[in-house]
Amino acid sequence: MGRNYIVADVGGTHIRTACFPIQSHVPTIVKRISTKGPNTPHERLIELIALVAPKDEEIAAITVAAPGPLDPFEGIIYEAPNIPGWNNLPLKKLIQDQFKVPVAIGNDANLAALGEWRFGAGVGHHHLVYITVSTGIGGGVIIDNQLLLGAHGLAAELGHITVVPDGPLCGCGKRGHLEAVTSGPAIARWVEQELSQGIPSVLPANRPITAKDVSLAASKGDELAQAALARGGTYLGIAIADYLHIFNPTVVIIGGGVSQSGESFFKPIRKAMSEHVLSSKYLENLILTSSSLGDDVGLMGALALAQTINNAAI
Amino acid sequence: MGRNYIVADVGGTHIRTACFPIQSHVPTIVKRISTKGPNTPHERLIELIALVAPKDEEIAAITVAAPGPLDPFEGIIYEAPNIPGWNNLPLKKLIQDQFKVPVAIGNDANLAALGEWRFGAGVGHHHLVYITVSTGIGGGVIIDNQLLLGAHGLAAELGHITVVPDGPLCGCGKRGHLEAVTSGPAIARWVEQELSQGIPSVLPANRPITAKDVSLAASKGDELAQAALARGGTYLGIAIADYLHIFNPTVVIIGGGVSQSGESFFKPIRKAMSEHVLSSKYLENLILTSSSLGDDVGLMGALALAQTINNAAI
Repeated sequence: MGRNYIVADVGGTHIRTACFPIQSHVPTIVKRISTKGPNTPHERLIELIALVAPKDEEIAAITVAAPGPLDPFEGIIYEAPNIPGWNNLPLKKLIQDQFKVPVAIGNDANLAALGEWRFGAGVGHHHLVYITVSTGIGGGVIIDNQLLLGAHGLAAELGHITVVPDGPLCGCGKRGHLEAVTSGPAIARWVEQELSQGIPSVLPANRPITAKDVSLAASKGDELAQAALARGGTYLGIAIADYLHIFNPTVVIIGGGVSQSGESFFKPIRKAMSEHVLSSKYLENLILTSSSLGDDVGLMGALALAQTINNAAI
Repeated sequence: MGRNYIVADVGGTHIRTACFPIQSHVPTIVKRISTKGPNTPHERLIELIALVAPKDEEIAAITVAAPGPLDPFEGIIYEAPNIPGWNNLPLKKLIQDQFKVPVAIGNDANLAALGEWRFGAGVGHHHLVYITVSTGIGGGVIIDNQLLLGAHGLAAELGHITVVPDGPLCGCGKRGHLEAVTSGPAIARWVEQELSQGIPSVLPANRPITAKDVSLAASKGDELAQAALARGGTYLGIAIADYLHIFNPTVVIIGGGVSQSGESFFKPIRKAMSEHVLSSKYLENLILTSSSLGDDVGLMGALALAQTINNAAI
């Protein structure tokens, strides 16, 4: 009888689940639905897990990559701002009660780091820093082949390092964090401000702009858009220099939508990184790269977690 | 026949060595000499090790806490700015060739963290951040009861996080690092600048000031001195908030001379920390305290390292 891992990736708008035979990296089935619908998001998650679970085979483990601060030890979601009702939700227990198999949950950015380390741009590295730049900025860190979790599972919040004291307000309510200057919305907001002051650009003034618009305009040579990505990239480069001093990794992987902006984003990152790093020793044999798992990073991270807990159980 | 650990603490001006019976935390002998003298610093270190080594007993291990970036795996000092000739010095091999016993070296701030965790203010904690604020700012981190070293042993340089982009020049040559605004000399330099602009204080203008002078004046109510410690403490508090997000520790220990400045320093640290922290969850059950091992932290850290390598060898 075959044994399988069921993995799930819960985002702000969609849930994906997949079934992997335990020796395989290729799913036998993948499903995707909106988090919104007649029933609650966790009911929809449980339904979608059931939908990919093979009928006559064993489930070795179920793992879930979930947004927001959570307790990976107890399996409780503290708060997932975009998902109604996910406050202090005992997600691990809810799934375990339903399926009666080992269950683990992890922060999505943490599991993305685990996924890149196990299957993606971090394969073969023992010390890895992963930063996802998207609506927010999340992080995950591998130290000596172990995921950094901290005392209560709240470690590796790499988007909430202060890079501009008294800088713009962050999504978390505090000022000057990296997320407040380099996330997609932060980059777009800065462009809107510049446009409102009459700075010329192909981007339209007085209309909401997205980071994707900025990225596209930059790729066509728009100077304001390029300046916006350079500003965001510079702060990220400063933060990465900090993370080199702190973790001394051999690979830094940047994921998330904004990381798709190419050299307009990566060039200022590299420049700021080398300008702020303590010693060139931190840059020797260091790889700075974009995520290689793309949209599948959540599912693959959950798969890596499933393998970890299954091996630990053996 | 008794078995002993010989431990050494090499500072910018002095070397200390001590002998501990392997089951004891109390040394049978401690010696101290200047790093300067007719012979080279590493010859002086080897002499001082020989001086505390018991004649008819076994040496289980020799460990050395040393300044500067170093390779703890190979036992090579990359650079110790205040010690002549300590550039790419294979210190572990030099000591091993002499005494023919297991030898390990570690960065002094890293070993201070290990010492506080094993014997001091961090006993019982599994996740610890140690920051020493002195001539420079160094750090050490314990994650899941393991010392954070990174790929090449260069991790936990907590003084070289950028807190003021384009801020003052740091000892390392880059700008705006924590060390450039919160180290003892940085605090003293800021006071000198304020004095030269006519700001009133009990401290003398046009004469070199030390951080100790500032600390003393602050304790007597001098407003400029208190403002200087508040400025340094605020930046340290911002950096500690970063480290809470990054490591999610249960204890943060501040060592080094400047940490002796009392509430004039700790109050602004706590204020900035809570102003910049992402969520109050990071502060729940968190202990922020000063070092409890004081001047012995280097020797006790080296002892903790000796116990670690001896246990690993068993």
